[in-house]
Amino acid sequence: MADRDPKISNPNVTTGPIRGSKKIYVEGKGGIRVAMREVHLEPSSGEPPVPVYDPSGPYTDPDATIDIQAGLPELRRDWIRDRGDVEEKTQRAVKAEDNGQLGPDRSGGVQPFPNVRRRVLRAKPGANVTQMHYAKKGIVTPEMEYVAIRENLGREQALDTPRDGESFGAEIPDFITPEFVRDEVARGRAIIPANINHPEAEPMAIGRNFLVKINANIGNSAVASDVASEVDKMVWATRWGADTVMDLSTGRNIHDTREWILRNSPVPIGTVPIYQALEKVGGIAEDLTWEIFADTLIEQAEQGVDYFTIHAGVRLPYVPMTAKRVTGIVSRGGSIMAKWCLAHHRESFLYEKFEEICEIMKAYDVSFSLGDGLRPGSIADANDEAQFAELYTLGELTKKAWAHDCQVMIEGPGHVPMHKIKENMTKQLEACDEAPFYTLGPLTTDIAPGYDHITSAIGAAQIGWYGTAMLCYVTPKEHLGLPDRDDVKVGVVTYKLAAHAADLAKGHPAAKVRDDALSRARFEFRWRDQFNLSLDPDTAEQYHDQTLPAEGAKTAHFCSMCGPKFCSMKITQEVRDFAAKQNSELGTQRLDDADAEKGMAEMSEKYREGGSELYIPPRQ
Amino acid sequence: MADRDPKISNPNVTTGPIRGSKKIYVEGKGGIRVAMREVHLEPSSGEPPVPVYDPSGPYTDPDATIDIQAGLPELRRDWIRDRGDVEEKTQRAVKAEDNGQLGPDRSGGVQPFPNVRRRVLRAKPGANVTQMHYAKKGIVTPEMEYVAIRENLGREQALDTPRDGESFGAEIPDFITPEFVRDEVARGRAIIPANINHPEAEPMAIGRNFLVKINANIGNSAVASDVASEVDKMVWATRWGADTVMDLSTGRNIHDTREWILRNSPVPIGTVPIYQALEKVGGIAEDLTWEIFADTLIEQAEQGVDYFTIHAGVRLPYVPMTAKRVTGIVSRGGSIMAKWCLAHHRESFLYEKFEEICEIMKAYDVSFSLGDGLRPGSIADANDEAQFAELYTLGELTKKAWAHDCQVMIEGPGHVPMHKIKENMTKQLEACDEAPFYTLGPLTTDIAPGYDHITSAIGAAQIGWYGTAMLCYVTPKEHLGLPDRDDVKVGVVTYKLAAHAADLAKGHPAAKVRDDALSRARFEFRWRDQFNLSLDPDTAEQYHDQTLPAEGAKTAHFCSMCGPKFCSMKITQEVRDFAAKQNSELGTQRLDDADAEKGMAEMSEKYREGGSELYIPPRQ
Repeated sequence: MADRDPKISNPNVTTGPIRGSKKIYVEGKGGIRVAMREVHLEPSSGEPPVPVYDPSGPYTDPDATIDIQAGLPELRRDWIRDRGDVEEKTQRAVKAEDNGQLGPDRSGGVQPFPNVRRRVLRAKPGANVTQMHYAKKGIVTPEMEYVAIRENLGREQALDTPRDGESFGAEIPDFITPEFVRDEVARGRAIIPANINHPEAEPMAIGRNFLVKINANIGNSAVASDVASEVDKMVWATRWGADTVMDLSTGRNIHDTREWILRNSPVPIGTVPIYQALEKVGGIAEDLTWEIFADTLIEQAEQGVDYFTIHAGVRLPYVPMTAKRVTGIVSRGGSIMAKWCLAHHRESFLYEKFEEICEIMKAYDVSFSLGDGLRPGSIADANDEAQFAELYTLGELTKKAWAHDCQVMIEGPGHVPMHKIKENMTKQLEACDEAPFYTLGPLTTDIAPGYDHITSAIGAAQIGWYGTAMLCYVTPKEHLGLPDRDDVKVGVVTYKLAAHAADLAKGHPAAKVRDDALSRARFEFRWRDQFNLSLDPDTAEQYHDQTLPAEGAKTAHFCSMCGPKFCSMKITQEVRDFAAKQNSELGTQRLDDADAEKGMAEMSEKYREGGSELYIPPRQ
Repeated sequence: MADRDPKISNPNVTTGPIRGSKKIYVEGKGGIRVAMREVHLEPSSGEPPVPVYDPSGPYTDPDATIDIQAGLPELRRDWIRDRGDVEEKTQRAVKAEDNGQLGPDRSGGVQPFPNVRRRVLRAKPGANVTQMHYAKKGIVTPEMEYVAIRENLGREQALDTPRDGESFGAEIPDFITPEFVRDEVARGRAIIPANINHPEAEPMAIGRNFLVKINANIGNSAVASDVASEVDKMVWATRWGADTVMDLSTGRNIHDTREWILRNSPVPIGTVPIYQALEKVGGIAEDLTWEIFADTLIEQAEQGVDYFTIHAGVRLPYVPMTAKRVTGIVSRGGSIMAKWCLAHHRESFLYEKFEEICEIMKAYDVSFSLGDGLRPGSIADANDEAQFAELYTLGELTKKAWAHDCQVMIEGPGHVPMHKIKENMTKQLEACDEAPFYTLGPLTTDIAPGYDHITSAIGAAQIGWYGTAMLCYVTPKEHLGLPDRDDVKVGVVTYKLAAHAADLAKGHPAAKVRDDALSRARFEFRWRDQFNLSLDPDTAEQYHDQTLPAEGAKTAHFCSMCGPKFCSMKITQEVRDFAAKQNSELGTQRLDDADAEKGMAEMSEKYREGGSELYIPPRQ
């Protein structure tokens, strides 16, 4: 960090194409251009390019000009304005405490973003600008169009292969239409986090009938960091596949840091506003007030945050339920609210003012991520009374938010042994009426610090399969320290593979396309294609030991020359016995022992003549 | 490798205690001393030491003298001889081809082990020395005693906590008795791999009513290696928790390398004898004969190999079933046998001579690991006809082996998407009558080379939960290159955590003890204890960022001062309403609004007086 310029005159963000793939844009109605990547295979394979889902934004497009001081182009600018339901207003003046001036400066000294919008958008009085509101009115927005094209990825290619999977009640269509997206958003089963003040973001959906998404957390909390590395962590995380990024920064300069991130982010950004509100009151939970919190929501909504974690389910009566826990309350937001509740011995202001929060959310289309402040922090505390009491309250709040046409997802645990994971999903679907579930892991054991990306990937893959719509990543540093760049990458790739394993198991129509292409490349020793098709081509190549024998391509299996009928039908003793007994019935299929022996000898000869190889090299 | 002395005059193997733990020996009947480790916690915790399962042998005992040129002490020597059913014979003379003289020397030049036994053991004529044979006769062997003590680990501590888990039909007792071990071995539901010529190994059980075990593969195949690094890889793998080790060496000096490994291994060693047999015929599969194979079995049985992978289920009629696969036959042993079958167009000699193989196995108590030569090598090929045809043949062979009182486990896949994993376990239990299942992963997606320890840990944890008894590890180098020391460690720790996640989910009575101890340490900021209780204390400490704020110990939750009753019963509006309606019924529990408000104000005051913290520091 020492060698970085804290003034970010020219910060280093990672740009350039991901190895072996090309940025493409698929055209939709009204000039919509949906970003994807295509992996091109060796011409010898005779295979079409493999399209892959790509949240990396313009950074991986060699034709794009990247200037993080200017920010990304405003992809959604006209879509938002053309709806005619927003008005410009002057941005709320930045206050000293917005940048956490009360705490020590651990940020490395962040300059304000040079290109701050002085005029921001909000809904016209009486208007509601949420995607859910449009959806309920039957309007298919460009955002929904974008999502449909994005999600269809490779489905045309896969249409002729039979569906295969166990979706636990999810209703995944063969093909995603914009109308399907609209319907899912209208009934609350999916959200499109898309603040009207974050027009730079490429629309994406979170819902159990769409591909499983992943979130990466970044933030300058707790230890020294700087804005350049936070912006790069966001770019870096989306490069490897993060579908959304949560900025969990605390301390100094968080308002300015967030502005840098938002203006440069191609993915939706989430935050936990209570963190900043707490900074504003000098870290004293009991000094928090509804007014300070509401002002923080407006501050962040105007900047363009796409979803807010709101721990409105941590109610006073639930706090004592955590007293007997092994690890108490582990959510930071949960602890803050529990302290507030205890200090005042009053019901949480988040719970009591929930309708007012909805009013703010719908004026900007900020989605709710209803926080699980009482999630278990250990195997011992999984699925307890406190956790489920909160979950059912989140269900109650979901219905309140939906009454305002606010988009909602629900956060979930945490630490859960495998046999208790399903119950989390089942109860969530029931309590929250299929609002998308967004879980952290869960970690399936507590005994492997340093490997919690793995203990949690095991749980994440399962809960993703059962129906969780987005998985919040865990890095190897979980419980131990703050993730660096490498940890962020390992966390993202680990969660991408868990999400993909879930997609395969759910039977997403085109999920197998990439696996099959990679497996064919593996079988045919097309190393380059194998690397390029993998989630992390650089690591795959680096691990590939050049001393391994270079084997030639192999394609046809010897047995495909005569097909399986010959051997399997003719040689087993059982079948011979059967044939002997049923000679008359078998009719022309009859083959006696001598004939069989002769046939076998011929096939043996043929095999040896072909070079005695199971697989026959191409064009031999 | 360049700086290692190929003569191994003083090879470097890793010795010394694992950080934060102490080797202990629990005494059993007849002077049996069962090795375990104990993690001692900070005295401030007031908690007892946590016992952990420990396959690392004498290498982690500071009181043991390690001399790898002499080999380990013969723990089981007297147990074996005292049964009176073995006789000494001169070891089969080492032939030039045993060391693979036909291939290129990639071994770095291995000296013969200096302490080779010239006299080896085998069963007296007509005798059967398998643990299953004793078990069926009702004899509880010292090996079974050892296993019982080893598996009981911490169960006394856990006896008062209720069992919690979903075991899918496994019958895990609260407490393991030697008689229980005997019964499980007798009915074939568990094996104790324990060749009479490997008396150095500490007895362990593989079966679904015992703790889930893991295997690590080592071997000098394909690239340069040397015996010192192979011995150390074995020691290193067991240090981190490998319960068995498979030596998959090929090429030159494999006989001598195996001798070094066996004489120094505290865990059962498995091999795939067909690999060595193939070396003996210059790598030409069709030149393999039953005689060469049988001679190889005897060679390895006399050395002390504890289990043999035998691909006897790869039958000629099944080979064509793989012709349409995306990745054909990926098992090396499977390919060898498929080639042999096709070259001769005859049934596999392993299948036809199976009874003769049993005769050899039972003379040394080598356990069968019936190989899955037709396992799927890609998501596309999972659960196909070829795979299950072979599985049912393995079931048929299990019964044949059991008729000889031979111990058997069954190998399983491979690459399987999550929704198809359960079927593997269900079919295996049915086809093989609950003989222990031993799977490689399975990998749950193909698209993450470089991360296949993780793609497979997801599958391994699940199949372990469903009933698989041993999980064969996968390292990050899978599909790409040969694992180095770091990869071996990452693979072992990853599989330990997957196996432990499975134990937790199955409801093994004491599995939670370690999780709970670590979670309490985490909650109370006992960092040292947290590191020491983890699977990899060194990495945990290394990742622990010293810049993180040192927080003080927290113990009691504020709410435990008045218990959950107060808030949860008294403040919710629902309860107040209910109380108003049912005043008469509630009787003494009645509390009116004014009383409630007063009580709340008092609690608020009390909380602030206590420092406004959720958790109260100890002894304040």
